[in-house]
Amino acid sequence: MSSLREEALHLHREKQGKLTVHSKVAVNSSHDLSLAYSPGVAEPCKEIHTDPQSVFDYTMKGNLVAVVSDGTAVLGLGNIGPHAAMPVMEGKAVLFKAFAGVDAFPLCVDSNEIDKIVETVKLLSPTFGGVNLEDIAAPRCFIIEERLKKEVDIPVFHDDQHGTAIVTLAGLFNALKVVDKALNDIKVVVNGAGAAGVAIIKLLLSLGVKDIVMCDSKGIIYEGRREGMNSVKENIARVTNHEGIRGDLAEAMKGSDVFIGVSVAGAVTKEMVRSMNRDPIIFAMANPTPEIMPEDAYEAGAKVVGTGRSDFPNQVNNVLAFPGIFRGSLDVRAREINEEMKVAAAQAIARLIEKDELSPEYVIPAPFNPKVAPKVAAEVAREAMNTGVARIQVDPDEIYKRTLQMTQS
Amino acid sequence: MSSLREEALHLHREKQGKLTVHSKVAVNSSHDLSLAYSPGVAEPCKEIHTDPQSVFDYTMKGNLVAVVSDGTAVLGLGNIGPHAAMPVMEGKAVLFKAFAGVDAFPLCVDSNEIDKIVETVKLLSPTFGGVNLEDIAAPRCFIIEERLKKEVDIPVFHDDQHGTAIVTLAGLFNALKVVDKALNDIKVVVNGAGAAGVAIIKLLLSLGVKDIVMCDSKGIIYEGRREGMNSVKENIARVTNHEGIRGDLAEAMKGSDVFIGVSVAGAVTKEMVRSMNRDPIIFAMANPTPEIMPEDAYEAGAKVVGTGRSDFPNQVNNVLAFPGIFRGSLDVRAREINEEMKVAAAQAIARLIEKDELSPEYVIPAPFNPKVAPKVAAEVAREAMNTGVARIQVDPDEIYKRTLQMTQS
Repeated sequence: MSSLREEALHLHREKQGKLTVHSKVAVNSSHDLSLAYSPGVAEPCKEIHTDPQSVFDYTMKGNLVAVVSDGTAVLGLGNIGPHAAMPVMEGKAVLFKAFAGVDAFPLCVDSNEIDKIVETVKLLSPTFGGVNLEDIAAPRCFIIEERLKKEVDIPVFHDDQHGTAIVTLAGLFNALKVVDKALNDIKVVVNGAGAAGVAIIKLLLSLGVKDIVMCDSKGIIYEGRREGMNSVKENIARVTNHEGIRGDLAEAMKGSDVFIGVSVAGAVTKEMVRSMNRDPIIFAMANPTPEIMPEDAYEAGAKVVGTGRSDFPNQVNNVLAFPGIFRGSLDVRAREINEEMKVAAAQAIARLIEKDELSPEYVIPAPFNPKVAPKVAAEVAREAMNTGVARIQVDPDEIYKRTLQMTQS
Repeated sequence: MSSLREEALHLHREKQGKLTVHSKVAVNSSHDLSLAYSPGVAEPCKEIHTDPQSVFDYTMKGNLVAVVSDGTAVLGLGNIGPHAAMPVMEGKAVLFKAFAGVDAFPLCVDSNEIDKIVETVKLLSPTFGGVNLEDIAAPRCFIIEERLKKEVDIPVFHDDQHGTAIVTLAGLFNALKVVDKALNDIKVVVNGAGAAGVAIIKLLLSLGVKDIVMCDSKGIIYEGRREGMNSVKENIARVTNHEGIRGDLAEAMKGSDVFIGVSVAGAVTKEMVRSMNRDPIIFAMANPTPEIMPEDAYEAGAKVVGTGRSDFPNQVNNVLAFPGIFRGSLDVRAREINEEMKVAAAQAIARLIEKDELSPEYVIPAPFNPKVAPKVAAEVAREAMNTGVARIQVDPDEIYKRTLQMTQS
């Protein structure tokens, strides 16, 4: 049996990549040609020119997401550039299609400049129904997403931030049920001030979590800290750590209820877990090696442990979120993906585990649970309509059924 | 029976456009996921980071063409903008796939500024193996193509210029055999100074045609003319019309051997055809109504008549050229599409009609002749290798066979 490396290289080489563009119409005769191309094609063109919204009816835009990267923060590989980022972006598009029937297309941008990336995506927005930003280094990713959200009229979603945040939140909802604690009573420590960590904190704050402390490689982030700060961390310092505690991660974790790690292997010791409040919840999502291995965490008294890995229980896997989120957004032609829609997605994921199924080792559904994307799509669409960002109204049950069919065929 | 309009609208609406993105790999298990996405996908990423050329092996780039438009000169509809241009760009991609197995993807750019269009395409060039510019108004299209050819390392081809020029040239090669005249003896009149007209003249000049006169709506273009000139026409004036004749189209056509019209319906009268040299050749390609209807041209003494229409013989249809040209270019990973490759394409198209099959009504093969794209691909690839713009060497016979298989499946 070949190694994973050889198998992966073979898979990518065999068919020259993982994606292809297919035609949905036949071109076998002059008549076919006259409909799909000149002169017949002029008719939908004229319709769209008269009624711009009909572009969603007559073109692929309504089911199409751009997967945009500059290749600066690819997996654990770092800044490998736009060419080397292509396999990941194609892979992302494969997942969009397999899990939610969304047409997604990789756009690797040959620039690290914020202005150029924003401009490129903005100029191409007529073609797409949504934009998934991927593997763009922090803190540029925050600025790019923020600017694009203001400048284009389609959803913009940085998956490394919000995908991870949403699935973590889903796991947290269920883990809190297991340990019988409430969101507004807990103390949460987030370790790692990159894209995911910041998004997790924003989402927790929006849900009323009061006691949050963020750490980075320099320790606890507090107002007035000088070392290793940037505008994003300054902002985090203002809205978290109200007691202004200082020190290292060990200090932060004392008496906390939840640890969320989006940092590096081995950052957490058993001792730190022992210093937490009763029934600690640990999401140790560093890849491929967690901040603390599940067996060590359990040994130190953790009640619920999740990681990013498929070989442990409770895998925090973005694929639970992004396919359904875009499916639901596209189906109602949403103008944006707002915080309410993200929370709706997390709740939908959490609720896929019935109360009597819940256990410390089962707070997050499996990635191949066929109901995940349909349920997320339906609830995200419902929330888009509730919050007024949907361009059209569609029955969420209908979206659920369609998505289920799409992904089972 | 519904009208063409209704049928075309239905076709576009039924499936929400004409294109879809398909996955070439299965994602049915955690193992599949670990190969197509994390962690296995890191392996091709690392390979490409080490050896940038391997991006052609491991990603879709090697078979992928961007169909780029700003929507300023769409069909006969004019400047309808990037959204309304989408059906045409999707249609173009459908043809790329159906006729030559090329994955093509529409990119409609929301700007008419040359700098912005050039920058957008340049920044996205890592993703693509070629760029097909489409329906961009003259004279901006010339500048955009010229700049991109210098600034990116993949082929850039403005089909409205070169596609039409190549197929016209193919028809001309065969028409000259029918009337027994030689390229370097003929006088050619080109009417219409847009994208296609200018490209036709450049190609004719590169082949040694000496006596060419171009007309636009203001009449003959000559050095020193003041009315309705631009930098492109100034250049045309310098390299054509060596006798410096002035006047209208009727004046230009006197004693000419070939009329090439890329202008407007009814521009040519029977009288003008009668004023031409013996056995006039007429390519009247205004759409949908030619410069002169074939029956009128024949009545006035024309020997060979071609148009842009499928309901007359000798249809000058770009679909004979662009699919095979990009197929051959992609197959040898060409850095550009040069003049030699364009001429090779025209010759390949012309030679698909055997000498004993040639007739005044059959100088251009039919669009659905299954040998066209394979033959064009093979000859374009051969010429790319001959002229040193190919990154790899591939047997042209192999390309012929592969393309034939691809399009028959």
